[in-house]
Amino acid sequence: MIKEITLQALDPQQFIKDKVKDIQDMVGAGTAINALSGGVDSSVVTMLGHRALGKKLRTIFVENGIMRQGEAEQVAAMFEKLGVAVEVVDARKEFFSALKSITDPEQKREAITQTFYKNIFGKIVRESQAKFLLQGTILTDVDETVAGIKRQHNVFEQLGIDPQKAFGYKIIEPLIQLRKDGVRRVGRELGLPEESFDRIPFPGPALAARVIGEVTPERIETVRKATVIVEKLLQYTSAFQYLAILHEDRVTGMRNGKRDFGQQIEVRCWNSHDARNATPTKLPYETLLQLGKEITEQVPGVVSVTYNIATKPPSTIEAI
Amino acid sequence: MIKEITLQALDPQQFIKDKVKDIQDMVGAGTAINALSGGVDSSVVTMLGHRALGKKLRTIFVENGIMRQGEAEQVAAMFEKLGVAVEVVDARKEFFSALKSITDPEQKREAITQTFYKNIFGKIVRESQAKFLLQGTILTDVDETVAGIKRQHNVFEQLGIDPQKAFGYKIIEPLIQLRKDGVRRVGRELGLPEESFDRIPFPGPALAARVIGEVTPERIETVRKATVIVEKLLQYTSAFQYLAILHEDRVTGMRNGKRDFGQQIEVRCWNSHDARNATPTKLPYETLLQLGKEITEQVPGVVSVTYNIATKPPSTIEAI
Repeated sequence: MIKEITLQALDPQQFIKDKVKDIQDMVGAGTAINALSGGVDSSVVTMLGHRALGKKLRTIFVENGIMRQGEAEQVAAMFEKLGVAVEVVDARKEFFSALKSITDPEQKREAITQTFYKNIFGKIVRESQAKFLLQGTILTDVDETVAGIKRQHNVFEQLGIDPQKAFGYKIIEPLIQLRKDGVRRVGRELGLPEESFDRIPFPGPALAARVIGEVTPERIETVRKATVIVEKLLQYTSAFQYLAILHEDRVTGMRNGKRDFGQQIEVRCWNSHDARNATPTKLPYETLLQLGKEITEQVPGVVSVTYNIATKPPSTIEAI
Repeated sequence: MIKEITLQALDPQQFIKDKVKDIQDMVGAGTAINALSGGVDSSVVTMLGHRALGKKLRTIFVENGIMRQGEAEQVAAMFEKLGVAVEVVDARKEFFSALKSITDPEQKREAITQTFYKNIFGKIVRESQAKFLLQGTILTDVDETVAGIKRQHNVFEQLGIDPQKAFGYKIIEPLIQLRKDGVRRVGRELGLPEESFDRIPFPGPALAARVIGEVTPERIETVRKATVIVEKLLQYTSAFQYLAILHEDRVTGMRNGKRDFGQQIEVRCWNSHDARNATPTKLPYETLLQLGKEITEQVPGVVSVTYNIATKPPSTIEAI
């Protein structure tokens, strides 16, 4: 049983001091490695690990080709400013090749997970001297999976490390007693800039979860361009989450007086407290029409834009 | 060159008297036949032909299986009230069999046209004694096609009648000098009820134009149910047109706490004067949310509903 540290009980300075010492004690003269996604949890773990281990920590950022516009550059630049070296690994080819011809959402997720763990990050871990793996697991993640040793076994399996040989590997999870609010508090104390906490939720499979049908570099570029517009126009709403989805269905359009069988982008903008229930945000019509205008004008191949008006349930926040 | 009769110049009583006499003179001792779709033009032609020929006119209504809920029954009932016998031909099997496996919009249209003209109505015409065909062509239709004799040749070809043998056939087009406003005026004079003029525009390929992907009886039933809700909730708007579209793309949904990979309905509601340009109607959010609620609750398999927020151009009014 993991003992929760609530936000009220949390002394962030003391927490950081304790965790830095724990990490140093565990790693000792060895080296550690971690994967940075740019999300809050992995960012906070990177900062803690850096403070504890300095150059004895290798932080890997995998450019998978399915992130939002400028995301890899922004994350790398932010950590550079904080004095933390991040190794950016360009794995775009590997991800797109794993996603080729797949249209089933579950198979897409599986292809992304497999490519990340086994082929890219797993390979780096296996080839490195690092036997310590820093992970940004938080208490909510544990609630959502089976707890304890089984979960850690899974991580090694995912990384392609034989459980027989995994004996030497150790996972360090310094945030495991915290929930999201506590993680944010610790992150602020560690000097992470405010914009790293403001970001709206973004799914693990990234923009691949925002493309219905096959994920190709071209289709990712289409939904990426639409996402820029959606995030620009909706960032000042107080919405819980907003996103653009590229449909596979083709619809009729008109360009320069000629029939143009084109693509459709669906915009979703949710009000929600806990993501379990959600309702569409009542965006002003000027905003809706501006979304329609900018997306059809600026995203090549898109002739039609819709706004989702169902609730969750029976809808879900993401489309796939 | 066809001489236009403008609404200002139109004397509806005199027009009806003249056309009734023209039709009687042309048909003489023979018989005539016409196809009633339920639209204004074919309804007015049916009334004119009935007044001129009585039982010497056979009026055919083809139930193609892709009409809106209750449409065939309503049209038949309306003409029964007016004392006009309408032969309802059940051709649902033939249409669905012609549409099987077709996903391309142009091929869909072609399959519907071919089935109607060659297989169903053409067969009836060929097997009948009627050599006179009444058609609701209006001046706007002529503007939109090549004028005169060529167009009439096309009709025979479409009906599967060899132009060599078509010599005996004659087409009568009593509304050809009128535009839509004049047709409505004449229709009122002929006693057609007011609701026959209020109907929003509906495309020739009917609900098949509202289904992206293959047209099956099940998919038509889905979009038909959604159409009932859309027409019920939007009939009091002053919109030019409103419609429901069934997408082929599947999206994730939740039912009774379980994942449900389901279908999406797109609602479009257009403001427009002439259909050349159109903008989305600014429906109140209560209406949008009610659409989302009723469609997901009442249409089996639908978990998601969107509202179109693009303009025409680059969108079009219909989706395919």
